Amino acid sequence: MKSFIVDLAERSYPIYIGKGLLDCLHEFDIWLATTQVLIVTNTTIAPIYLDRVTEAMKLLNGDMQIHAVILPDGEQYKNWVTLNLIYDALLHYKYERGCLLIALGGGVVGDMAGFAAATYQRGVSFIQIPTTLLSQVDSSVGGKTGINHPMGKNMIGAFYQPKSVIIDINTLATLPDREFSAGLAEVIKYGLINDTDFFCWIERNMQALLLRQPDALIYIIERSCLNKSLIVSSDEREAGKRALLNLGHTFGHAIESHQGYGKWLHGEAVAAGIMVASRLSHQLGWLNAEQLLRIRNLLECARLPVLIPHDMNPMDFYEKMQVDKKVVNGKIRYILLKNIGEATIENNISRDDVITAINHCCL
Amino acid sequence: MKSFIVDLAERSYPIYIGKGLLDCLHEFDIWLATTQVLIVTNTTIAPIYLDRVTEAMKLLNGDMQIHAVILPDGEQYKNWVTLNLIYDALLHYKYERGCLLIALGGGVVGDMAGFAAATYQRGVSFIQIPTTLLSQVDSSVGGKTGINHPMGKNMIGAFYQPKSVIIDINTLATLPDREFSAGLAEVIKYGLINDTDFFCWIERNMQALLLRQPDALIYIIERSCLNKSLIVSSDEREAGKRALLNLGHTFGHAIESHQGYGKWLHGEAVAAGIMVASRLSHQLGWLNAEQLLRIRNLLECARLPVLIPHDMNPMDFYEKMQVDKKVVNGKIRYILLKNIGEATIENNISRDDVITAINHCCL
Repeated sequence: MKSFIVDLAERSYPIYIGKGLLDCLHEFDIWLATTQVLIVTNTTIAPIYLDRVTEAMKLLNGDMQIHAVILPDGEQYKNWVTLNLIYDALLHYKYERGCLLIALGGGVVGDMAGFAAATYQRGVSFIQIPTTLLSQVDSSVGGKTGINHPMGKNMIGAFYQPKSVIIDINTLATLPDREFSAGLAEVIKYGLINDTDFFCWIERNMQALLLRQPDALIYIIERSCLNKSLIVSSDEREAGKRALLNLGHTFGHAIESHQGYGKWLHGEAVAAGIMVASRLSHQLGWLNAEQLLRIRNLLECARLPVLIPHDMNPMDFYEKMQVDKKVVNGKIRYILLKNIGEATIENNISRDDVITAINHCCL
Repeated sequence: MKSFIVDLAERSYPIYIGKGLLDCLHEFDIWLATTQVLIVTNTTIAPIYLDRVTEAMKLLNGDMQIHAVILPDGEQYKNWVTLNLIYDALLHYKYERGCLLIALGGGVVGDMAGFAAATYQRGVSFIQIPTTLLSQVDSSVGGKTGINHPMGKNMIGAFYQPKSVIIDINTLATLPDREFSAGLAEVIKYGLINDTDFFCWIERNMQALLLRQPDALIYIIERSCLNKSLIVSSDEREAGKRALLNLGHTFGHAIESHQGYGKWLHGEAVAAGIMVASRLSHQLGWLNAEQLLRIRNLLECARLPVLIPHDMNPMDFYEKMQVDKKVVNGKIRYILLKNIGEATIENNISRDDVITAINHCCL
């Protein structure tokens, strides 16, 4: 088992990464001590893992009050109505401030359980047990929680850190290929932002990853979490360099927002978004043609989309980008690439340049 | 003008208290600097003060983007549907992370604008301009924000501090008598908790207060805010002594919850709740009969209810108390009085004792 600490002063917490951790949850008793636990999961994950986690909690404390909320699965349910299912359960079963929420599932479950924990009785404890590659490498680190609003993704939320994160790579065995690939988009992103060696490692080992070779999985999850935690530790509330983590996301959010959430997976939208950002970086004379091709090839090897959806035209796309948390003084902060392994924040990119880049990423 | 700082480390903020401050808002430019401001107010306050605040903001910066959201007035609207009016406006007008929310109104407006600020884009700035006595002496200090859930009051929320609080006592001139009295319930509460001299001062000066004599108003607001800020500074997230501020509130919330919010004002429910707490303290041998009478007399002089509503029986009452943030390990933490000016937190009060006290406060 690997473990390290996300350093956030009094909100620091550990991440554990290993094979079969769900079968030895009792060893994490120090993080699970409570008298009331609510397991938040979804309709896909519950049949596979809910009993196992429930039994582990019972072993820890036979008197523990344990309930579960099973949410519908998908980004299109990451909204107020679904969030209320969690509040309703907490109130119905009279959960107190000393209770613990366990987020058992992917990024949507983690974001909603985390936001419920941040806001129920003005804040209770929560633990993340992410079960998708995307949530293991991204959303379980950094404390961003929240829900979507019909007018914008993740527009309502809070920064709120878990007590710990427990990552069992065995849960990836049941993950559909499409979701696995979506997670790889965020992994590739870390290489592009700040870690050239990691990008090269992924290029060399893509086949092992697609075969879900355990050591390769543990390696990319640990290195991704480390990359992210270093950035988050230095800028928890995204005043500055944390914005680098949004590479591909402003473009990606436009796709998700246009489609109404849930058609493309988040990681798929990010992959296409990374291509738009890379194309724009190339136009500006930063990335050369070979680098642009390497990025495109790696995304394609990971079975990710590199073009924007058929039904979006560049004007739709540009309009959707205007409602985004990355907008400052009416200007979008673009995250672009000076090189593979060197991202930059740019505020003065012309509308024409952006639309040209989007055009290049249409069919 | 009086002013002092609520000491909360990097979240510290100033409170200004004076006569006519709304007419010189431009002097608070350091707190109001932004390019996008959303004024959150309600249907009662907007016709009286909205133009004045809007004009003041225009004076500060002619290019400022200024919009207002006018919420329905009343505790029964302190819910998700109303909160969404704020999010909708923020998103519709493309407000960015650097925006400022101004809460112009009473406690309900402050709680909702504050929670919207805490959660819009995971946190933006806000300023409180409280216009009711209750919000001036209580809810504008301490950073509790949130909304009600059908199953419990203030069950969804966040601790989130404003950048500053500007209290203009001239706004009390238009406050209905019933709401003014409701505010006095919280003022009397501070005397009871920790400030015997203040309690005696209120006893001596109740007539001046009911006549809304300006110096008396400034005095009680300042002393109430100081009392509250000392407690909040030592325990921002209510791990310990901040719970003392809930004197009368666990009982009061049961009344509000039973009635469905909005029939009795919050301060009225707190007044009746203080009487139940005082009665219980008397039963336990702490408050003597004379002290009990002084409390009852002072509340009655302030034109506040000292009995629970006709349509509630003690069992209803007890049941409603079980869903409350003050419940720990299935036990309610009662805030009781050892003396006038000395509150205490008690975890081991028997159900029978509580029901006897409630019975005494029925007609």
